[in-house]
Amino acid sequence: MPVLVQKYGGTSVGTPERIHRVADRIVQTRRSGADLVVVVSAMGDATDELLDLAAKVSDRSHPRELDMLLTAGERISMALLSMAVNDRGQEAVSFTGSQSGIVTDTSHTRAKILEVRADRIRDELSRGRVVIVAGFQGVSRDREVTTLGRGGSDTTAVALAAALGAEECEIYTDVEGVYTADPRVVHGARKLKNLSYDEMLELASLGAKVLHNRSVEIARRFGVPIHVRSSFSSNEGSRIRKGESMERVVIRGIAHDPDVAKIALLDVPDRPGVAAEIFRAVGEQGVNVRLIVQASGSDGKNDVTFAVGSHEVRAVLPVVEEVRKRLGARAFVYDPDVAILSVVGEGLATSAGTAGEVFDALAKAGINIEIISTSSITITCIVRKPDVERAVRALHDALRLEQEP
Amino acid sequence: MPVLVQKYGGTSVGTPERIHRVADRIVQTRRSGADLVVVVSAMGDATDELLDLAAKVSDRSHPRELDMLLTAGERISMALLSMAVNDRGQEAVSFTGSQSGIVTDTSHTRAKILEVRADRIRDELSRGRVVIVAGFQGVSRDREVTTLGRGGSDTTAVALAAALGAEECEIYTDVEGVYTADPRVVHGARKLKNLSYDEMLELASLGAKVLHNRSVEIARRFGVPIHVRSSFSSNEGSRIRKGESMERVVIRGIAHDPDVAKIALLDVPDRPGVAAEIFRAVGEQGVNVRLIVQASGSDGKNDVTFAVGSHEVRAVLPVVEEVRKRLGARAFVYDPDVAILSVVGEGLATSAGTAGEVFDALAKAGINIEIISTSSITITCIVRKPDVERAVRALHDALRLEQEP
Repeated sequence: MPVLVQKYGGTSVGTPERIHRVADRIVQTRRSGADLVVVVSAMGDATDELLDLAAKVSDRSHPRELDMLLTAGERISMALLSMAVNDRGQEAVSFTGSQSGIVTDTSHTRAKILEVRADRIRDELSRGRVVIVAGFQGVSRDREVTTLGRGGSDTTAVALAAALGAEECEIYTDVEGVYTADPRVVHGARKLKNLSYDEMLELASLGAKVLHNRSVEIARRFGVPIHVRSSFSSNEGSRIRKGESMERVVIRGIAHDPDVAKIALLDVPDRPGVAAEIFRAVGEQGVNVRLIVQASGSDGKNDVTFAVGSHEVRAVLPVVEEVRKRLGARAFVYDPDVAILSVVGEGLATSAGTAGEVFDALAKAGINIEIISTSSITITCIVRKPDVERAVRALHDALRLEQEP
Repeated sequence: MPVLVQKYGGTSVGTPERIHRVADRIVQTRRSGADLVVVVSAMGDATDELLDLAAKVSDRSHPRELDMLLTAGERISMALLSMAVNDRGQEAVSFTGSQSGIVTDTSHTRAKILEVRADRIRDELSRGRVVIVAGFQGVSRDREVTTLGRGGSDTTAVALAAALGAEECEIYTDVEGVYTADPRVVHGARKLKNLSYDEMLELASLGAKVLHNRSVEIARRFGVPIHVRSSFSSNEGSRIRKGESMERVVIRGIAHDPDVAKIALLDVPDRPGVAAEIFRAVGEQGVNVRLIVQASGSDGKNDVTFAVGSHEVRAVLPVVEEVRKRLGARAFVYDPDVAILSVVGEGLATSAGTAGEVFDALAKAGINIEIISTSSITITCIVRKPDVERAVRALHDALRLEQEP
C-alpha cells in the first residue's frame, strides 16, 4: 500500500472539537487506501503557555530543560488525537519523537535530524494502524530529548515521508495554499497549484509563512512531493515538486516581510575569509540571514550589508560589534525601518527583461530601492518599511500575476 | 557520598512560587553533603486537567494513550524544577521515567516496576548533579510509556532509593507526618516519630493517606528508611523503618476510613479454592480489597464478607454477581453505609488484654461492631458509617494515645 504522511499544525488541533474533525479526515483518508502517518504539533497556544511558565520560573537559558518542557505539548495532542481515531474504529497508536526513531544531534532547541529509524512505524503500519507522531521532537544518540526549533513539525513530517518513501507529504495549515502574494496585502493574489522546491524555498524564507524552509530543503534532497492545504476545507492546495523546464520564465509570486532589519558593516578590510568570519559568528547565534550584499570598493575596503529578522536583532548586535572590532571595520549601521521583498520564479536568470520590468514598476510607484540582490530564481529588494505593501501591489499588477501564466 | 532521595508531591510544586521554595530546599540539602535524587509529581491539578481533556475527546478507555497523555504532567514540573535549581548555581538534570531506567511490565495505567536500571542517574550523580526524576512513570521492555497508577510517585521514589542504596527516602507532603489518628477527627492526635513498615502498611491501607502502601511494601522488602515530612516546614516528620522488639505492645495509632462499602456473599459452598476464585476475580479489576472475613458454617456453607473503597464499588459489583452465580452462592449483601477502623501496633498479637480494651472502649461508647478481623499487628472493625469518628475518639482516649508510650 502507498504511504501518505499528513501533518496538522497547532491551529488544526487547537480544541477537542477540532481534534474530532482531524480524526474524521484521518479515518476517511485511511479508508481510501493508504498507509497513514500523521505528524501533529502541540495544541493551539500550548507551547506559548509552557514558555510563559518557564519564564515565571527562570529568566535564564536552559536549553536541555526547555526541550524537556516543550515536548510535553505534542505528547498531549497526539495522545488525544489517537484516542479520537481509535474511537472511530480505526486502530491508531501515538509515538514520541524518540519512539518514531527521529535521531538528532545534541543541539537543544534547534537540533538537526541525523537519521530516521522508522522500524517501529513500519511495524505498526503493517498491522494496519495509523501512526500518530509527535512533531518537532527527537532524541539524540545519548538518549537526550531534543527539539527541532522553528518549523520543526514540518521538518518531522517531510523527514518521515522521505524515510518511508511516502507518495506525498500533506501539510495541513490554516490557509488554502501558497499564493502569488500575501492575500491580505494583494486583493488579486492567486493560489499556486504547482511550484518547485526552489521557488518554495525562496517564498518560504522571505515571508510566505505556510511552510518552513528546512522542511522544503529535505523534501528537495529526497524528492518528497509536498501538498500544502487547509485543514478547514477539502480544496486542493499547492503542490511542491521538482522544477520543470528552465527555459520558460514563469514568475510564481512575490514574497515580502516587513519584520526585518538591515545591518551594514562599513569599510571592512578586503581580505579572504572576512565574509566567512562575519557570517559564521552570526550563524552561531542560530540566526538565519535573509540577504547578503557586498559592494567591492576600490580602496581595499568593502561594505558588507545583510538583513535579519527583527526578533533576531538582540542576538545579532553584540556579535556584530565584536566582529567589527576583530576585523577592524570602521563602523556599522543598524536600520530597523526596512522591509524585504522578493520576486520568485524559475527562469528569471535567463530573462533580463523581467528584472527591468520589476525595477520599472517600483520606480513608477515612487518606491526607492535601497538594495538589490538577485539569484537565478529571485530578484530581492530592500525598501523602506512603510513602502513595502504598496510595492508588492504595484509588482503584482505590473507582472500580471492575477492571471494564470 | 551518601545518596538521598526526596519526593515532592503535586501540591508542593503546584505554582512557580512553590517550585522556587522546593528548589531552595534541594540546594540546601545538596550543600549539606549528600548526592541527591528528587522525584516529582505533576503540578497541582495538572493530571486532573489532562483527564478532563481526555474526557472531552473520548468517553472510552484508551490505557496506552492515557499513559502517553498523563506523563506530560511530570515532564512539565520536572523541567521547571530543574531550571530553578540550575539558576541557584547547583547543576541539575531532569530525567523521564524511561531515562531513569524505571522498567515496568506492560499494564498501562497500573504498571508494576520490574527493575531499576539506574546507571544514567549514577553517572549524573558522580558529576555532582542533582537528578530530578519524573514520578509515576516508567517504560516497558517493548519501549512503551507506562504509568504506575495511584501513589505512583511514592513508588518511584522508594524504588530509586532501593536501587541506589540511598540512606533515606524523604517523602514531602502537605502534612507534618503520620499521626496516632486523623488530627481533623481527634484533637489530641500525636505525630509519630517512628513506626515500622508493617505498622505504616496498616495505617496507609486503612486511610492514613500520607503514603501509598505499594511504596511501603518496596521499602520493607529492600529496607529503605522513609521519612515522611512537610514541604512547608523544616520540622522532623515520621520515620519508617524496620520493626523493633516484638515483645513490647506499642499501639501506634488508629486508622479509619469512612469511604468503604461492605459486600457479603451468603451461603457459599465450602470447598477448596472458593476464596481464591472470588478474590482473583475482584483483583482483576485492579481493586484493592481492604478486609476479608470468612465465617465457617457447620452445614458446608460459608459467608464471605469483604470491604472495598466506595469508589471501587462500580467495578466490583458486576464481578461479584458473576462469581456468585458461578459458585452457586445463595445471594449477596451490599452495604454502603459502613466504615472501617483499625488499631495498629506491633506486639498486639501477644497481648490479649489490648483487644479487650478496644472492644470495651467501643462498647462503653455505645458503638456496635459489625465485623472484627485481627492480624499480628492490627485489630480491625467495621462499624456503621455515622459512628466511626466517635469510635476513633473513644479509642484514642481509652488507649491513652495522646501521651508518648
